[in-house]
Amino acid sequence: MNEQTSFRPKARLPRGFRDRDEAELAAERRMLDTIRRVYSGYGFQALETSTLEYADALGKFLPDQDRPNEGVFSFKDDDGQWLSLRYDLTAPLARYVAENFQNLPKPFRRYQVGTVWRNEKPGPGRFREFTQFDADTVGSASPAADAELLMMTCDSLEALGLKRGEYIVKLNSRKLLDGVLEAAGLAVNGPDAAMRGTVLRAIDKVDRLGSEGVRALLGAGRKDESGDFTKGAGLNDAQIERIMAFAMPAGVDATWLAVLPMLQIAIQGGISSVGADGYKEIYEIARILNEAGYGTDRVCFDASVVRGLEYYTGAVFEAQLTFPVTNEAGEAVVFGSVGGGGRYDDLIARFTGQSVPASGISIGVSRLLSALKARAGAESFAVEPLIVVLVMDRSAIAESFKTAAELRSSGFRAEAYVGTKRFGDQLKYADKRGAAVAIIEGEDERKNGKVTIKDLALGAELAKSVESRAQWVQDRPAQQTVDRDQLVPAIRAIIGRGA
Amino acid sequence: MNEQTSFRPKARLPRGFRDRDEAELAAERRMLDTIRRVYSGYGFQALETSTLEYADALGKFLPDQDRPNEGVFSFKDDDGQWLSLRYDLTAPLARYVAENFQNLPKPFRRYQVGTVWRNEKPGPGRFREFTQFDADTVGSASPAADAELLMMTCDSLEALGLKRGEYIVKLNSRKLLDGVLEAAGLAVNGPDAAMRGTVLRAIDKVDRLGSEGVRALLGAGRKDESGDFTKGAGLNDAQIERIMAFAMPAGVDATWLAVLPMLQIAIQGGISSVGADGYKEIYEIARILNEAGYGTDRVCFDASVVRGLEYYTGAVFEAQLTFPVTNEAGEAVVFGSVGGGGRYDDLIARFTGQSVPASGISIGVSRLLSALKARAGAESFAVEPLIVVLVMDRSAIAESFKTAAELRSSGFRAEAYVGTKRFGDQLKYADKRGAAVAIIEGEDERKNGKVTIKDLALGAELAKSVESRAQWVQDRPAQQTVDRDQLVPAIRAIIGRGA
Repeated sequence: MNEQTSFRPKARLPRGFRDRDEAELAAERRMLDTIRRVYSGYGFQALETSTLEYADALGKFLPDQDRPNEGVFSFKDDDGQWLSLRYDLTAPLARYVAENFQNLPKPFRRYQVGTVWRNEKPGPGRFREFTQFDADTVGSASPAADAELLMMTCDSLEALGLKRGEYIVKLNSRKLLDGVLEAAGLAVNGPDAAMRGTVLRAIDKVDRLGSEGVRALLGAGRKDESGDFTKGAGLNDAQIERIMAFAMPAGVDATWLAVLPMLQIAIQGGISSVGADGYKEIYEIARILNEAGYGTDRVCFDASVVRGLEYYTGAVFEAQLTFPVTNEAGEAVVFGSVGGGGRYDDLIARFTGQSVPASGISIGVSRLLSALKARAGAESFAVEPLIVVLVMDRSAIAESFKTAAELRSSGFRAEAYVGTKRFGDQLKYADKRGAAVAIIEGEDERKNGKVTIKDLALGAELAKSVESRAQWVQDRPAQQTVDRDQLVPAIRAIIGRGA
Repeated sequence: MNEQTSFRPKARLPRGFRDRDEAELAAERRMLDTIRRVYSGYGFQALETSTLEYADALGKFLPDQDRPNEGVFSFKDDDGQWLSLRYDLTAPLARYVAENFQNLPKPFRRYQVGTVWRNEKPGPGRFREFTQFDADTVGSASPAADAELLMMTCDSLEALGLKRGEYIVKLNSRKLLDGVLEAAGLAVNGPDAAMRGTVLRAIDKVDRLGSEGVRALLGAGRKDESGDFTKGAGLNDAQIERIMAFAMPAGVDATWLAVLPMLQIAIQGGISSVGADGYKEIYEIARILNEAGYGTDRVCFDASVVRGLEYYTGAVFEAQLTFPVTNEAGEAVVFGSVGGGGRYDDLIARFTGQSVPASGISIGVSRLLSALKARAGAESFAVEPLIVVLVMDRSAIAESFKTAAELRSSGFRAEAYVGTKRFGDQLKYADKRGAAVAIIEGEDERKNGKVTIKDLALGAELAKSVESRAQWVQDRPAQQTVDRDQLVPAIRAIIGRGA
């Protein structure tokens, strides 16, 4: 290391990345295990694709980006080919299916949980690496495949403890939207393709901008509070009215409509043949859901759901949590989206030239986790209570190890202190770890077949509440000495009491 | 997608990366959960650091590489700083500890499981991304910390089903090695630092090259079978003899020695003061292990264990599996190393200038997984039996969904077929999925309150064994029709039988 002593790097995390601690990881693991159990229970197969892909295989489908590979971490391999860190789990799935098509069961239904990376400007709560949990069905054009994804999403959210009414999965169709645009005179698959994108992005912003804001973006454009001007789609008033009547019908709560009446509105508003196809598909999904017992209290139609990704071709989904949480400004707001997806029948054709029907839904893991925390409180991040066996005499450390091992074999989480500090610092260590119990077993105790148990949680509480510290020290109700063979029952009483 | 139709990328995985399927992922998850339970049980805290780090924070400590950042995937961030994908979990831990030192409990004991990346030439079984499972204790110079890591490794391997004698955790010390080198006249912390590396790498190759090969590499050098010449350390015969007497004593099985007698040999062979320190540390680790009940059948001293990483400063560990497996050439070979580690007291000082004692052990996850598979057989990769509810009438798909949901609520893994193919293809689908059971519930069956159950595993076996296919079709012992309310018990009988 001699050549390095002159250079001392600063220990710092790169911008937009983070380290995660035990409590968050434990809560996340419980959540992921629950979702995995539901998805696997539905017969979906686990898959893990590589984190790096050839850049050309990922293609240009990064959400909300127009330039290829904008926002992706890429570097040149030693053979001159560009590799990219995956930005989602769908593009790698398309590569995987195209590469292994002959050997896969059809339909191929897989789930994957994994890290994805975005080379974007980080911000508060906006990271450059995060986890997604995806489920996709490839090789079935049947609305049953979409219905299944929606049911599975409902089942997952309920398995995570959400009650009926605390979430809603919303359904719309790109074909319906296209049908309305075509009826308004736009050639969405021809010269007006770019304008279509502008229109969809405008509708997508209704939650943030309200219906007047959307109207402005469909027309000439909109100036935001900072004075920045966003160019609009340039539609005329009649076109704007027709689109608004579908996506945000006046006098109707578009968010909470039952599926079929809403679709009637769309039909009355005029729709093209692609729109009629979309209507049939949504109708069929809704029929299956209703017959399978998933009513509009769980899955509902919402014409304003667009989803950002360019590649959707039919049904689109969005899972939203409807309970209020307190934001940074102290206001109660509805939590909102925790995932979404839809049909993307053209993604695999990029490789093979053959269209393969596919549909999927992706859960934003950290967003869902923070929602569950907001709802269930901090105890949802609880970790298993810890016991620290203090070491009075370092030459007898093996005895402490044996005591910790005995406690572990009784089902507790227990460690012997392996540092080199004295008693007081060992107690501080146990406090810092948030340990529930400290065990004190000095030479005298061992000689007399005794052991001392300190209830750290109770001790901390008593220290807060009693008026005189002297009195507390005298009573020491949080500390007891028991016969050595009563160690496990005594701890069970404490940890049971604390839990 | 119009602008892309002219370009069609080939769907292919980058070299050195792989996709992993359900069976492997399920086995790996079980294995990681078991190790996690042991590590967490010892009171180690979970930590997850970011996958990307500033390149200067990772430093030059890549195993077996002399140039900084050789073998690392790196790219320039938009602010001009270099980011690298982590190549192990130890360098990021050093960054994390240096960054958060004040807030951490001391000692800080953490485990982390995660992907690491190596930008190296891939080969058979040699990938550019893989998983490591690390446990480290930072902030304790006590041999108790090393002893704990070794005990925890033993406990993990036994929790995974390995029996005493099927594994061994080996222990050595860099200080002992340095002591022997110093006694042989080398200034290992001065002008002979580079030569020390050559010597350690030579000793590390004893398994592959045998003692004659090591002797050549300690001396002038060695020509391998392909005719390539590797320059040696250039030691004289007396120096070589002294080192060999320690690392590979003649007439003594260095691999299976009990700790203390072996150390006596080292002492007799002459040792410097750093070597004497190493002796004391190893002696203390051995004493604790023995008193805590971990005998030399689980942890033993082996003077030839070196470990490749430059940064070790004291004790080094290597976990080896001792049972034979069959290699590609059909030969029975000992499985060998599945992990290792040691003390690295200087790694955090790179950032802070202050030496912080630290020790850790890392398990190579895929290597250990393949060892467990080799030992337990293919059934260790088993997945939960799957039931496929076939769809006779697509308009009644909701009925099939309800049947699948009923089976799931009885604890089975069950899906309704969501494709668009007919009966025969649905059966082929169920076969391809390796389903245990197919459920057939047509209109007639539903009308009569019946359901047909096909035992696919039994059917496949019978189809193999009976001589006449006609007879098998006639008997159909693998297919039964039962009352609808007997569905769950009937399936339980089949899957219980199959399991």
